[in-house]
Amino acid sequence: MLRLDTRFLPDFPEALKAHAPLLEEARRSLLAKRKNPGSMLGFLDLPEDTETLREIRRYREANPWVEDFVLIGIGGSALGPKALEAAFNESGVRFHYVDHVEPEPVIKLLRALDPGKTLVNVVSKSGTTAETLAGFLVFLDWLKGALGEAWRRHLVVTTDPETGPLRALAAREGLRAFAIPKEVGGRFSVLSPVGLLPLAFAGADLEALLMGARKANETALAPVEESLPLKTALLLHLHRHLPVHAFMVYSERLKHLPEWFVQLHDESLGKRDKEGNRVGTTALPALGPQDQHAQVQLFREGPLDKLLAMVVPESPLEDLRIPPAEGLEAASYLFGKTLFGLLRAEAEATYQALAEAGQRVYALYLSQVSPYAVGWLLQHLMWQTAFLGELWGVNAFDQPGVELGKRLTRAFLEAWK
Amino acid sequence: MLRLDTRFLPDFPEALKAHAPLLEEARRSLLAKRKNPGSMLGFLDLPEDTETLREIRRYREANPWVEDFVLIGIGGSALGPKALEAAFNESGVRFHYVDHVEPEPVIKLLRALDPGKTLVNVVSKSGTTAETLAGFLVFLDWLKGALGEAWRRHLVVTTDPETGPLRALAAREGLRAFAIPKEVGGRFSVLSPVGLLPLAFAGADLEALLMGARKANETALAPVEESLPLKTALLLHLHRHLPVHAFMVYSERLKHLPEWFVQLHDESLGKRDKEGNRVGTTALPALGPQDQHAQVQLFREGPLDKLLAMVVPESPLEDLRIPPAEGLEAASYLFGKTLFGLLRAEAEATYQALAEAGQRVYALYLSQVSPYAVGWLLQHLMWQTAFLGELWGVNAFDQPGVELGKRLTRAFLEAWK
Repeated sequence: MLRLDTRFLPDFPEALKAHAPLLEEARRSLLAKRKNPGSMLGFLDLPEDTETLREIRRYREANPWVEDFVLIGIGGSALGPKALEAAFNESGVRFHYVDHVEPEPVIKLLRALDPGKTLVNVVSKSGTTAETLAGFLVFLDWLKGALGEAWRRHLVVTTDPETGPLRALAAREGLRAFAIPKEVGGRFSVLSPVGLLPLAFAGADLEALLMGARKANETALAPVEESLPLKTALLLHLHRHLPVHAFMVYSERLKHLPEWFVQLHDESLGKRDKEGNRVGTTALPALGPQDQHAQVQLFREGPLDKLLAMVVPESPLEDLRIPPAEGLEAASYLFGKTLFGLLRAEAEATYQALAEAGQRVYALYLSQVSPYAVGWLLQHLMWQTAFLGELWGVNAFDQPGVELGKRLTRAFLEAWK
Repeated sequence: MLRLDTRFLPDFPEALKAHAPLLEEARRSLLAKRKNPGSMLGFLDLPEDTETLREIRRYREANPWVEDFVLIGIGGSALGPKALEAAFNESGVRFHYVDHVEPEPVIKLLRALDPGKTLVNVVSKSGTTAETLAGFLVFLDWLKGALGEAWRRHLVVTTDPETGPLRALAAREGLRAFAIPKEVGGRFSVLSPVGLLPLAFAGADLEALLMGARKANETALAPVEESLPLKTALLLHLHRHLPVHAFMVYSERLKHLPEWFVQLHDESLGKRDKEGNRVGTTALPALGPQDQHAQVQLFREGPLDKLLAMVVPESPLEDLRIPPAEGLEAASYLFGKTLFGLLRAEAEATYQALAEAGQRVYALYLSQVSPYAVGWLLQHLMWQTAFLGELWGVNAFDQPGVELGKRLTRAFLEAWK
């Protein structure tokens, strides 16, 4: 369950009423595009796709020998699976992310892996991502060298259903391949095979994850005053003059979630609008309680230039009591409390201290760090982002600003020999 | 070696000349405090402390049985060791960071560890940090339960040389304890036993690390036009009207370095000055090439509200050639290139693309990701921060803004029973 708390923003209920027509119009305009090819709203349908889920399950069951799972992908192809696998790995399969091209860690990984127990998953919608292809060529060569003809069984491709070099290779070599639907973009793909395939090997509860996402779809379509994604989109819209949007998560298991959110928010909304104005706010990743000892000093006494969202779990799956110890009476206020009690007290204290400092802050309470609640949260944030695209007059589903970097990279590579 | 590049800031050499007297004065005023008790400038002396280094070496050699190293600490007690261990772990000792209080990962860790092969290092300058004491009480109880009287050998304390509950416990129980010097604060402590002890178990080259830091001391004291830390401090000073300072590192091994820098920068400089004004800029962590697929879209087309620093290695320790593959001709431009060549091309392309977009950006080139160069970089950034404290009129060495949160946490814990 996901619950919005705006107790320190007393002006919000009034603002919600005043902006209801604007929000209605943003939703209407977004949903009107749903059936247009190229609208990239396919993420709305992923939670209902039980057929793909079954296929992935069967594939996972047919490959019980996997002990190491190497995911080669970058950006939207890695951030979602990484965030969820860190939280919900129940199987003990070891995950390795080649989401970079630094040689030394790749060399170290290749030396440590047993190819006979390793499954390599190459993930790229277009099949043309430079970093992904570079890593893939290295691993492909390694699998062929170590396993001979058996290499095919150790490779699984996640890419466009029809086009691109990875789809062509899979067809030519008879490789197992899963499809990222045409209308689903990288940063909206976590509930497609991009996320579901690795998570099946991690032993996560995929049904619950998708069920949570369906709940987010339901709330997105609810009347404005009950529509959680319209409400948080409005919070961001009302504070768009503040340059920084901090996203602070009170869960070690969800430590990679802020990075996923940063991509979703920044790459979707940091653009030029139709008039050529530069729009967008900068998402800032933060963790609790760690950042109480790093960023909170700045949040409390530095400039009031931030909107802060705190994601706080309300109950643990399993807790641990803090035992007393002789000679450590300075810690006696902790004796007999629980770790989760301390975590929750710190989150509430920080929430209150940030509001007291004059920062604009709200909370999203998660019933617990479960696949259901986190699936809901992810789909909620994707809706929020799509709504903001409408409110800010930008296409939330493209990324024209990265083209120059790609062209220059090729130019440098060619010039340097 | 560390090298500053400002090719896309053509106005900088002129500004450096104009601001030389201001920089001289900031340095003079900082160094004048050096001998004052409480000035907290002890980080300047750490690279010379060969006696502590010898002591740590002897302790490491006396404990060859360690297979798992659990570091219990938060903020400045964890971020430095985590950043360096990720880059320079040569020993294969497994590191676990209890820098949070979420129960489920602690429970999972306790179930996986063999206490007989585990060394627990509890790290807190004051010895009173709530999260650290909570984690420590759990691990202390676990060690005593599993090992009986032998527990003492599996515990090592890093804390104040004289005061605090952890120092008292160590004295009472005869535990091995290392000292964080009086004049060294948490976020400036990475080259004290806070960092050196875990890094000794990681098998990192500590001599080289300290040698690099000594080089940073040398450049800090050089004439203004050759003083790297004065120059980068000026870059940040000249751009203090920009709310965001992105710190983008092109190295997977250094993936935790931005988090260390975020604490150093934000907690040192995000404060009220003497007139009560809120000062500081928000450090934004970023990694290359990963964030080319996440944040760079925003950096290119979003608001021009950032100063960007790129940290780029100039050569690899070991490289890997990208092999060709039949059927993947779309990637033929990569065939025969190396992973490092691609990394470097991407860094240069992004540097140029960001400048072309109108963002303010400079580069810090690291000769390679070696202990020497990284030791230099860390000490450089600590000098930069100390200089900025002088330029912005704030005490870079306190953190008054986190007190309310601590008080409220205790109040909530007590109220909730």
